[in-house]
Amino acid sequence: MKKPAGIPGGLSRFRIDYAYDGTDFAGWAKQPGLRTVQGEFLIALAKVFGESDNDFGMRVAGRTDAGVHASHQVMHIDLSQEQLGRLGRTPLTAKRLQNLTPSDIGVYSVELAPAGFHARFSATGRSYEYGISDALCKPDPMRFRYVLSTPRTLDVDLMRAAAQGLVGLKDFGAFCRPREGSTTIRELRKLEIQRESDGKIMIRLEADAFCHNMVRALVGGLSAVGEKKLSKEELWEIQKSAIRTAKFKVVAPQGLNLVGVSYPPDAELANQAEKTRNMRGLDDISV
Amino acid sequence: MKKPAGIPGGLSRFRIDYAYDGTDFAGWAKQPGLRTVQGEFLIALAKVFGESDNDFGMRVAGRTDAGVHASHQVMHIDLSQEQLGRLGRTPLTAKRLQNLTPSDIGVYSVELAPAGFHARFSATGRSYEYGISDALCKPDPMRFRYVLSTPRTLDVDLMRAAAQGLVGLKDFGAFCRPREGSTTIRELRKLEIQRESDGKIMIRLEADAFCHNMVRALVGGLSAVGEKKLSKEELWEIQKSAIRTAKFKVVAPQGLNLVGVSYPPDAELANQAEKTRNMRGLDDISV
Repeated sequence: MKKPAGIPGGLSRFRIDYAYDGTDFAGWAKQPGLRTVQGEFLIALAKVFGESDNDFGMRVAGRTDAGVHASHQVMHIDLSQEQLGRLGRTPLTAKRLQNLTPSDIGVYSVELAPAGFHARFSATGRSYEYGISDALCKPDPMRFRYVLSTPRTLDVDLMRAAAQGLVGLKDFGAFCRPREGSTTIRELRKLEIQRESDGKIMIRLEADAFCHNMVRALVGGLSAVGEKKLSKEELWEIQKSAIRTAKFKVVAPQGLNLVGVSYPPDAELANQAEKTRNMRGLDDISV
Repeated sequence: MKKPAGIPGGLSRFRIDYAYDGTDFAGWAKQPGLRTVQGEFLIALAKVFGESDNDFGMRVAGRTDAGVHASHQVMHIDLSQEQLGRLGRTPLTAKRLQNLTPSDIGVYSVELAPAGFHARFSATGRSYEYGISDALCKPDPMRFRYVLSTPRTLDVDLMRAAAQGLVGLKDFGAFCRPREGSTTIRELRKLEIQRESDGKIMIRLEADAFCHNMVRALVGGLSAVGEKKLSKEELWEIQKSAIRTAKFKVVAPQGLNLVGVSYPPDAELANQAEKTRNMRGLDDISV
């Protein structure tokens, strides 16, 4: 479903930056009968515009799965002149949208988007973090919704050595839930693993985009290395095979957090969007 | 219900240090049909000892209300020789108790208590923190379970000035839910208010003990000052009156966190317990 890089006539595009606690959401994308992030925003916008069957052209940078958090997410919506007129003297500010959404959503900003901006296709990078609490960590019950807890001890040095062989422009088919007509080649720019001062293991990743389940499968593979169930060479072979394996698991969603989305300078937004569409042919970038 | 400072014959007392996320608990103290912190520990101990109607002499330093968190709580249990015998070769370690309790409880340590130790009566101090996110804060949906959110802006300087007149050995009857036969005199040793680097307002309190609702009523009074609904002099007058008022509210529980309990050196534990019993005659120190 190709669309022109520009915005259909008469529509104004708004960029919305926000955050959410994924615990009580069945993911980002709307689903009938389920509480989702998109669903809550559509309810909020319906309160403003009185159009409950409209999706306002909403598109998101990183479509997260159930239970995954976002401390910084980006989306856009398109509003017609008629809709803007209906706002009257009360603009659609971050504060107004915040007051219309529940407390597990936080709205940072609502701004008229620069020409050529597309929240998903203009993005040049996504950054995620995954937190693990292992046997070396002090229990922290106020963080259990935000980290994966394991009773085992992970060897962070082994994990770090394994990570080095995964960074770069590669086929991550072994770490992706397959999707017809989509490439699994991604540029993994960063894969850093660190034991923080409080004992928790933080895995920080950045790529042009991640295919579905990719972050959680990479963390699963690295955890298997950290538990000495898998050598780094075996993990690298699995990556090269581009075939999914049962040698490690896709880890639980609650440890995962989308921390940022990057965009090029305004002048390159339209070109970047066109490039992404041609190159990836992706219909989904959920993680 | 007075008890001797010592432990009834044949029992061994264990000190347990732990934490919990109060969100999904109906408070610390067990209540029929409700999920409570004590209830979860009693379920865990029943799994070990097979005694589902036993409360194991469990006593806690700070009995928290529904929704209140504890990043460091202390309690004790008393085990008989027969019960200890039933443990066999598997001692009751923090790890074992952790595995028997849900993920919103974290067990730091289980240790044989020194002579004269009583989790509640030997304690010489309790420290609490209360977090507020006001209009000057960036929204933080991953913290909504741990702070009070208000759409208003609080003047921290005014709050700090008001706090100075509340510190000391005073009658806090105006801030306490009354309880027959209990004194409302407390020594409030610390009442510090600070806007943190992330914008949140943290109120840090320490006292010998707090009476029921005292922290949340103090924070309510200070918030009214911060909102300029009440002057510091009016708040001080209310304190001196020792009579409850409708001029401020008892704030919501989710911003409150018990962060620590202090005890005297081992040699003074028994004396301290006796002193507390005689002085306060308290049957409850919930906050």
